[in-house]
Amino acid sequence: MRHSQLFTKTRRETPSDEVAKNAQLLMRAGYIHKEMAGVYSYLPLGLRTLNRIVQIIREEMDAIGGQELVMSALQDKELWSRTDRWDDAKVDIWFKTLFKSGGETGLGITHEEPLTRIMTEHISSYRDLPVYAYQFQNKFRNELRAKAGIMRGKEFLMKDLYSFSRNEVEHADFYTSAREAYRKVFRRLGIGDWTYLTFASGGIFSEFSEEFQTISNAGEDTIYIDEAKGIAVNKEVMSDDSLEKLGLHRSSLVERRAIEVGNIFNLGTRFSEKLGLTYADEQGVSRPVVMGCYGIGPSRLMGVLVETLADEKGIVWPAVVAPFRYHLVSLGHAGDEVSKVADELYADLEKAGIATLYDDRDLRAGEKFADSDLLGMPYRIVVGKDAAATGLFEVVERATGAVAKRSRAEILAAPQ
Amino acid sequence: MRHSQLFTKTRRETPSDEVAKNAQLLMRAGYIHKEMAGVYSYLPLGLRTLNRIVQIIREEMDAIGGQELVMSALQDKELWSRTDRWDDAKVDIWFKTLFKSGGETGLGITHEEPLTRIMTEHISSYRDLPVYAYQFQNKFRNELRAKAGIMRGKEFLMKDLYSFSRNEVEHADFYTSAREAYRKVFRRLGIGDWTYLTFASGGIFSEFSEEFQTISNAGEDTIYIDEAKGIAVNKEVMSDDSLEKLGLHRSSLVERRAIEVGNIFNLGTRFSEKLGLTYADEQGVSRPVVMGCYGIGPSRLMGVLVETLADEKGIVWPAVVAPFRYHLVSLGHAGDEVSKVADELYADLEKAGIATLYDDRDLRAGEKFADSDLLGMPYRIVVGKDAAATGLFEVVERATGAVAKRSRAEILAAPQ
Repeated sequence: MRHSQLFTKTRRETPSDEVAKNAQLLMRAGYIHKEMAGVYSYLPLGLRTLNRIVQIIREEMDAIGGQELVMSALQDKELWSRTDRWDDAKVDIWFKTLFKSGGETGLGITHEEPLTRIMTEHISSYRDLPVYAYQFQNKFRNELRAKAGIMRGKEFLMKDLYSFSRNEVEHADFYTSAREAYRKVFRRLGIGDWTYLTFASGGIFSEFSEEFQTISNAGEDTIYIDEAKGIAVNKEVMSDDSLEKLGLHRSSLVERRAIEVGNIFNLGTRFSEKLGLTYADEQGVSRPVVMGCYGIGPSRLMGVLVETLADEKGIVWPAVVAPFRYHLVSLGHAGDEVSKVADELYADLEKAGIATLYDDRDLRAGEKFADSDLLGMPYRIVVGKDAAATGLFEVVERATGAVAKRSRAEILAAPQ
Repeated sequence: MRHSQLFTKTRRETPSDEVAKNAQLLMRAGYIHKEMAGVYSYLPLGLRTLNRIVQIIREEMDAIGGQELVMSALQDKELWSRTDRWDDAKVDIWFKTLFKSGGETGLGITHEEPLTRIMTEHISSYRDLPVYAYQFQNKFRNELRAKAGIMRGKEFLMKDLYSFSRNEVEHADFYTSAREAYRKVFRRLGIGDWTYLTFASGGIFSEFSEEFQTISNAGEDTIYIDEAKGIAVNKEVMSDDSLEKLGLHRSSLVERRAIEVGNIFNLGTRFSEKLGLTYADEQGVSRPVVMGCYGIGPSRLMGVLVETLADEKGIVWPAVVAPFRYHLVSLGHAGDEVSKVADELYADLEKAGIATLYDDRDLRAGEKFADSDLLGMPYRIVVGKDAAATGLFEVVERATGAVAKRSRAEILAAPQ
């Protein structure tokens, strides 16, 4: 895309109404717009980035047999009353509103209830199981505080997968695959090395749940890591009793701030029993379906990538999620030789299907470089007089600052 | 995809709580689930179909220079008060709710206000214009009645594009391209021949707005068509005065029921003046930006396709939006020669990237054919003993019932 066509502008000053580093940088770079506290819109560069994160998660969910659907935000009060999760005294983050046609509704905070009800129409026999279904869908949570930028919004995109299994053994098998799929997602996003499987409160479903926590000073959680074992314990369940159950020793744990990037819950038969999701087994005996749920927030992950990878000059995207691989910066002026060479390279990159943001604007080099640093594409290609003369382009890696001279062919050999 | 892996089941009986044909068929076929009146979830087959409609619209919006973004559902009361569209006495379809952090919010019914505000941060000079931005985003409208299935939901997917131009001339140019892009969308979806550019009430913005109306008995509108000119007038503006302005004659008009599938509004400077979206022209004079908005509902279009193309046996999808091109129906049983041939053809189709739903279930032929008719894939490939013996497969076109014998190579020559 030509930078001159992109409608968003960067700004130098830090927005005064935003405290989180991730949102400050994303707002300055024109990736997002803050509508209200905890409510953000995704502008073209932001949406491209978010969609790439979504696609990585989608591939890993499909790989473990997930079937994608999308449920409504508007929720049925009667349904949630049956599981006792409607009352504000029980769940205090609902946005509730009224139908003009009569009755109360709320905005989905999660989707165990509606999906369990859907499944009662499609599952009746052991032959119909197991089923794994997931969605990318906006959740609404009426949070009192919203100070973490896009890492904790009142409206945010969530990938929520739900598993429906015949019994605990079948459930445990899938649970293990889902955990491994989560590890793959975090590795592909480049945060695998500082993301830990963390034991946390299981709530009413089981003794522990499993979270994935990424080390970050902006994190809202405190975790205790056993580096050798590669696992951690959330402060909320840190006790001698828990440590003994998990086979961990206080002396080998390191305390760190972290942000939760994924979670996995055993739901057992809590929802299936209350909502009548049963199946007939091989002997014709009716049994409740065993469920699990598995969440990852793509917009939160986008915030985490900014928090953990950005430097003093701006955003640094991993190549797998960057809205464009190359930021092609022309130092020429309309009609001159340099700008002709840059135009040609851009045309070649477009033809090769390699995502490129082409800074064809008539601005000083310093302004272009500052924008390029702020926007954070993985590689900057500089086209100056030198390149026009030698046919070799300066390619600067955003993360390291490493500079290399590359030929047109080498640049075009990049992955699409 | 193997049918045996798809979690949704079809049902023979018409759902008793649904009056619209489109939703009845889509529910029976397992494409959607009705959560409440006017609120639907999209199950795997439904989401695939919806996404293909979205992609066609996206391509046409990109082709006229649209930049995709996505705004929040939660809306800022203060912003909408500035254009006098917050008060229920002025706009009566809001869902409103309260922030626990204080203050009222509502669910976006449309997005002129937030996008105009976003643009005040990115447009300041004539050099920044024109800009065309669009989104696919769920709208919420608190409709009193919801009897048209997915053609009029309380929560529904909308493509809304907004144009920002320097002046009326520049605006008119884009308006013309957007109109042509809409025609392309309807032609690609196969409803071009019975979709008419229709003059309707312009509201407070201009004398007429333009709608696209598709002839359908399930439509909520009445339009008067001039077949020769290929245009129509909505009943709401049908008067001698209007007809004269539009150069139409009552005697050449035919009355039909129709459903609105797209609309285009001139917004003039109404929003830009109230929200301070101005730019400095070449002489440095501050001027308000001239705006337009352009809506298409992908979920409504999906409903329209069902309403207008379905027959007594079920849904009939155009190939461009069908979740799968082929419904491969094996009449074999696990391990026999017929099922081996079907398995091989399926493997070849998968390898060729041709979307195929493979009915590998151990059911009677009659049940499989009934499901296949209901689900509505464009082509059914039947694999029986004959195919196993001759290498020629019976291919049945869903829309016409036309039967042809096709070789493996002919079947694999289909578009991806």
